[in-house]
Amino acid sequence: MSVTQAQGFLAAGTTAGLKPSGKPDLCLIHRSVPAGPGVGFAAVFTRNAVVGAPVIIGRAAREAVLAGRAEPVSTILINAGNSNSATGEQGVRDARRCMEAAAGALGIAPDRVLPVSTGVIGRPLQVGKIVDAATGLAKSLASGEAADDAAAACIMTTDLVPKRSARRVNIAGRQITIGGIAKGSGMIAPQLDSAAGPRPPSATMLAFITTDAPIASPDLQAALEHAAHRSFDRISVDNHPSCSDTAVALSSGAAGGAPITRGSPAFDAFAEALHAVCTDLAEQIVTDGEGATRTFRVLVKGARSAGDAEAMARQVVNSPLVKCAIHGRDPNWGRIVTAAGNAGIAFDTAHASLTIGGIEVYKAGVPVVTALTDPRLAQAMAAKRVECVLTVGHGPGEAWMLGCDLSKDYVSINADYTT
Amino acid sequence: MSVTQAQGFLAAGTTAGLKPSGKPDLCLIHRSVPAGPGVGFAAVFTRNAVVGAPVIIGRAAREAVLAGRAEPVSTILINAGNSNSATGEQGVRDARRCMEAAAGALGIAPDRVLPVSTGVIGRPLQVGKIVDAATGLAKSLASGEAADDAAAACIMTTDLVPKRSARRVNIAGRQITIGGIAKGSGMIAPQLDSAAGPRPPSATMLAFITTDAPIASPDLQAALEHAAHRSFDRISVDNHPSCSDTAVALSSGAAGGAPITRGSPAFDAFAEALHAVCTDLAEQIVTDGEGATRTFRVLVKGARSAGDAEAMARQVVNSPLVKCAIHGRDPNWGRIVTAAGNAGIAFDTAHASLTIGGIEVYKAGVPVVTALTDPRLAQAMAAKRVECVLTVGHGPGEAWMLGCDLSKDYVSINADYTT
Repeated sequence: MSVTQAQGFLAAGTTAGLKPSGKPDLCLIHRSVPAGPGVGFAAVFTRNAVVGAPVIIGRAAREAVLAGRAEPVSTILINAGNSNSATGEQGVRDARRCMEAAAGALGIAPDRVLPVSTGVIGRPLQVGKIVDAATGLAKSLASGEAADDAAAACIMTTDLVPKRSARRVNIAGRQITIGGIAKGSGMIAPQLDSAAGPRPPSATMLAFITTDAPIASPDLQAALEHAAHRSFDRISVDNHPSCSDTAVALSSGAAGGAPITRGSPAFDAFAEALHAVCTDLAEQIVTDGEGATRTFRVLVKGARSAGDAEAMARQVVNSPLVKCAIHGRDPNWGRIVTAAGNAGIAFDTAHASLTIGGIEVYKAGVPVVTALTDPRLAQAMAAKRVECVLTVGHGPGEAWMLGCDLSKDYVSINADYTT
Repeated sequence: MSVTQAQGFLAAGTTAGLKPSGKPDLCLIHRSVPAGPGVGFAAVFTRNAVVGAPVIIGRAAREAVLAGRAEPVSTILINAGNSNSATGEQGVRDARRCMEAAAGALGIAPDRVLPVSTGVIGRPLQVGKIVDAATGLAKSLASGEAADDAAAACIMTTDLVPKRSARRVNIAGRQITIGGIAKGSGMIAPQLDSAAGPRPPSATMLAFITTDAPIASPDLQAALEHAAHRSFDRISVDNHPSCSDTAVALSSGAAGGAPITRGSPAFDAFAEALHAVCTDLAEQIVTDGEGATRTFRVLVKGARSAGDAEAMARQVVNSPLVKCAIHGRDPNWGRIVTAAGNAGIAFDTAHASLTIGGIEVYKAGVPVVTALTDPRLAQAMAAKRVECVLTVGHGPGEAWMLGCDLSKDYVSINADYTT
């Protein structure tokens, strides 16, 4: 169960013919209950300077909803096979035609529909195929396992497995459900924006989360940003943020009760549960990264700030040399330390230390030479998830990033994608 | 001919036993004429926050020479097989013992010797082997083809071919020779520093250049910085700047005549010739990048500043997705445009265009769909050097970067390096 587990949501998937493989490629997620005080829409998008037409439309929708000028988005129309990016104004017109087709089939206003596209960049969207499929897709909307499976499968591109997550929590006496689906698995290094303003820049990762919690758009947006920046933004497959990265949350309020608002214990509990779902989906994305066989987590501690720590951890998970060492189970830890040294942030190596799987390999700026023959180090390097902790000083800043190894399969997958 | 082509320089190489492969690993480059007004030393080093012991010593030597507190360095002692990095204070003491051994063998002061190390990180330097080899190495110093070949071979690590370059120019009636050797070929993304202060942050690339031009240290330093920042800093194999990146220039003044000083036409002519030698060596490094089969150059034009253009070009040459597309001869140009979009610099895609090998694939924010079936595009993608020009606006800023493709061999080479 995932995206239709929360009350008030339906989903459907079909094959519109956008993928050369002929696999399912069009998905609809729809809130079936009317707008009200506990109904909300929230979204975060890529920080790439080049964005797909759906991101342009989505940002405008977010702005209108948060400003109270529009009702929350109720419906997400997602296609794989074509990202409708780098397609200029025609791309925006094409996306609007798809919104209109879905809205017409559902009997709702077009601006209640959020379009999302993933796939090859710089090709005109095959609008006719999407329009033709819209009515049938809307008719097949349903809740339950089969609908969830169809939705999760339709949004896949090079993903090997569908990604889903769901969580039930009790908040203020009500049972709240949060469920979601996501896709990776290349162009993955999201750095998602904020409604309030930009964050430092980010692959196509898509995540769609629904909840029956009663929570209005501004509060849902705050919870989503908190969760996304601590989950999706902390993963990298290939350090190439996409033009289409998108995470969306929809609330139906169907669990009942008073709306959950910022500053309350109920909000904190909701935000934490949403964070758990996002983290689960983010970990699934990196585990299924293109060509990935294993993952590694880098925790940088002792930096001057969390931002400094994040910048250093990001350099480590993105270094092709570190990624190859993880792939080869090679305890070549000098690559980790020097990768951190490339963040443009000074630190004193006399206070720098590194552990791998808890084994100290570098301590106060000096190699722990005996570690290299320690069988526990070989074991730690062979783990499904290699855990590295790099201390760079005595400051309060710490941050983690989760990456995956670089294999020959990554090269195969990406050396022959469009042709 | 290369590093001993200029009058006044000798070189030698030997096998000290530092490389597990048993290949040559110790090199000496030596100015054989005494210090004087036309003799100089200049160096630029990595901007990594983690640096090898030789970089610590080299920076101090540069500072002392430029401040007039010390005579120019006359001799470079280079070992491969161990980078003497992340080795703490013991590393510095070890490097000093090597300097003393070389100085003793040559009958010069130890601070006239610059130590340089490349190879695995975080292992104690095998000082005894270097000390034992020093006397024999000093005795074998010579000029000519064999000495040049020995020097270029000794500094190689994963390089498949030695890198050398030389150029003769006529400056103010004198014939001046500039010659050099370099090595790559992984951890290559140099961003070298300046004597005057830091530049934004960088693989182990090493370059050693000699000239018989009469040019003192401060002038030679200015010429080297100008050349290095427009050559070595413009290449990337794997976006992982090393802790040991170093480029050194030595002048003997043996060509005679008045010293070449900044602000003169003679200086401009010298700087241009030095730049040509550095560019030649830089191109050889990226062409022999680990696993590389082809190279690609990205010129970004129309940015607000050269710095913005460089940041965008750097994102493109470092994107694993772009590098795989180049490897697969896949004209998936959306990866190029979106990589540039990740530099954290806003630009209006309505004014963005991209050509590959002169073929327009993206024009004013819209795909040129017919290009994909143009046989000239397939030809351009198959070239030994793929040439991409990305225009991002109407600004004056432009910059190029030179990268190489990402192949399965890169993964093989780096998944099993130390073990």
